[in-house]
Amino acid sequence: MKVSVKTPATIANLGPGFDSFGLALPLYNIISVEETVLPGSGIEINIINEKNNENGIGDVPTDKTNIVYKAIELLYNFIGQVPAELKITIKTQIPISRGLGSSSSVIVGGLIAANELLGRPADEKVLMSIATEIEGHPDNITPAFKGGMTMASWEDDGSVIYKKLPWNDEWKFMVCIPDYELNTEISRSVLPKEVPLKDAVFNLKRSAMFIDALYTKDEKMLNFALKDKLHQPYREKLVPGLSDIINNLKHTNGVIGTVLCGAGPSILIIYNGIGVGEIKEIVTNTWNYFNVKTNFLNLPLEKEGASIII
Amino acid sequence: MKVSVKTPATIANLGPGFDSFGLALPLYNIISVEETVLPGSGIEINIINEKNNENGIGDVPTDKTNIVYKAIELLYNFIGQVPAELKITIKTQIPISRGLGSSSSVIVGGLIAANELLGRPADEKVLMSIATEIEGHPDNITPAFKGGMTMASWEDDGSVIYKKLPWNDEWKFMVCIPDYELNTEISRSVLPKEVPLKDAVFNLKRSAMFIDALYTKDEKMLNFALKDKLHQPYREKLVPGLSDIINNLKHTNGVIGTVLCGAGPSILIIYNGIGVGEIKEIVTNTWNYFNVKTNFLNLPLEKEGASIII
Repeated sequence: MKVSVKTPATIANLGPGFDSFGLALPLYNIISVEETVLPGSGIEINIINEKNNENGIGDVPTDKTNIVYKAIELLYNFIGQVPAELKITIKTQIPISRGLGSSSSVIVGGLIAANELLGRPADEKVLMSIATEIEGHPDNITPAFKGGMTMASWEDDGSVIYKKLPWNDEWKFMVCIPDYELNTEISRSVLPKEVPLKDAVFNLKRSAMFIDALYTKDEKMLNFALKDKLHQPYREKLVPGLSDIINNLKHTNGVIGTVLCGAGPSILIIYNGIGVGEIKEIVTNTWNYFNVKTNFLNLPLEKEGASIII
Repeated sequence: MKVSVKTPATIANLGPGFDSFGLALPLYNIISVEETVLPGSGIEINIINEKNNENGIGDVPTDKTNIVYKAIELLYNFIGQVPAELKITIKTQIPISRGLGSSSSVIVGGLIAANELLGRPADEKVLMSIATEIEGHPDNITPAFKGGMTMASWEDDGSVIYKKLPWNDEWKFMVCIPDYELNTEISRSVLPKEVPLKDAVFNLKRSAMFIDALYTKDEKMLNFALKDKLHQPYREKLVPGLSDIINNLKHTNGVIGTVLCGAGPSILIIYNGIGVGEIKEIVTNTWNYFNVKTNFLNLPLEKEGASIII
């Protein structure tokens, strides 16, 4: 028996909502898990790079250190078993190490597929909890599971508390993907252990304003909210041009806000549908100055989360 | 000519929303400002303690160091004048130095009264900005002006951005006022300049959840949101029993959340209408252990802000 799951790309943090906010995009990885027939064939992991994934898949491990395998192993452990013979196939559209949630996508897809294969021993809560344990925080995991715009918190007892948020479809996304990878662990290592209290207050206000803007469709409030002092400033050195792009787009017609995608290095521009040409020109020119080439993706919000496909 | 303004008591912070969230309560100060007839009579400030203000008015200055005078002076400066002969009368119901916004109340009331007296040279934006400059942050100023439940941010250019938030009237307030005063400046002095990044993330998530809970009337989410790691833990030493009261009420029927009022020392309990007796007993007993006596106020949200009275 083989189960395949389609899981969307996701963008986390979204400015003020470090480790909390996330959204799904209509760009997918397909994760297939099958119990192989031949006993003793062990674990086989294949990664197939889809043609339209120009950015490649990098050097993802295909042994038991692969995060999909690790997630599936935890699920098996949850029911007191260990995986024996498994074939895992990952067809990727989502570029890796670009801040687009490729790892969350395969963790979530692998878990849902394996859970189906095992006769659904785990409910959504358990699956989310395992996925978050592997990923370390639920900001990408939640939109990969549920789609849409989400906020999430990982609690001390291991459970994930989340909410799907409303989104105004007049607000569009432009994802600017640079031509280099940035490892999430490296991007986390540049964050300080302590931050100024006033920066903590800056972000808590804006995360509150972000939620308010979503419920009231208040574009001015959203523009006001999409700022951050807790992670983006520290990641500037790993994403040269980030603050220049944010500043250069500040007064561009149509732009509501510019934020780093997850741990970077991609940049997300939220805009109200106008000014696409000017936005692209500003990003291209700014990154050109840093010898970085840009690939643009103009995408709506993916409202559906991971789903089993036939 | 004499103008009198009635301004509500306010509670700021509300757990996760340090320096940002605030609410108004139906307990009022009345601030009257009149230009005196006799030239050379200077500035006269009278404070009248209303009978039902059991907690007294303390040693509020009645000279030009009084914050109401300072606020009015800034307004006069705004139109290129200085106040000459003014009689300011403050009738107080709101106890001072208890975390109930008495200073914001008189600043806002004094400014609105003086502005009226001057023929309304300043709009609301200017008045809020002056009030926030005197007070230092807009969390009490905003609900004193506008009433209701609010969030606010004071920007680098001096302007105040705020929003009135929805409130579920099924959620009630119990204000527990201890029998001692706590100076706001002292209460601010115990806060650290730097905080752990993980505590900043803890609060930004909960301030987002607070807003979500208000828009969706989600009691479970509100219970989840009403926690703080940025100010309450540091103020514990100035408000002995705070964490004990929070913990002892955690599983009490009806309690949604327990937070410090502003800079303290009062404590606000948000509950769903049941369990009043048990809540009072727990607070009384816990504070008794610390030799603190408690005065309870059971009040609804005051939806109206400061208003000119005849």
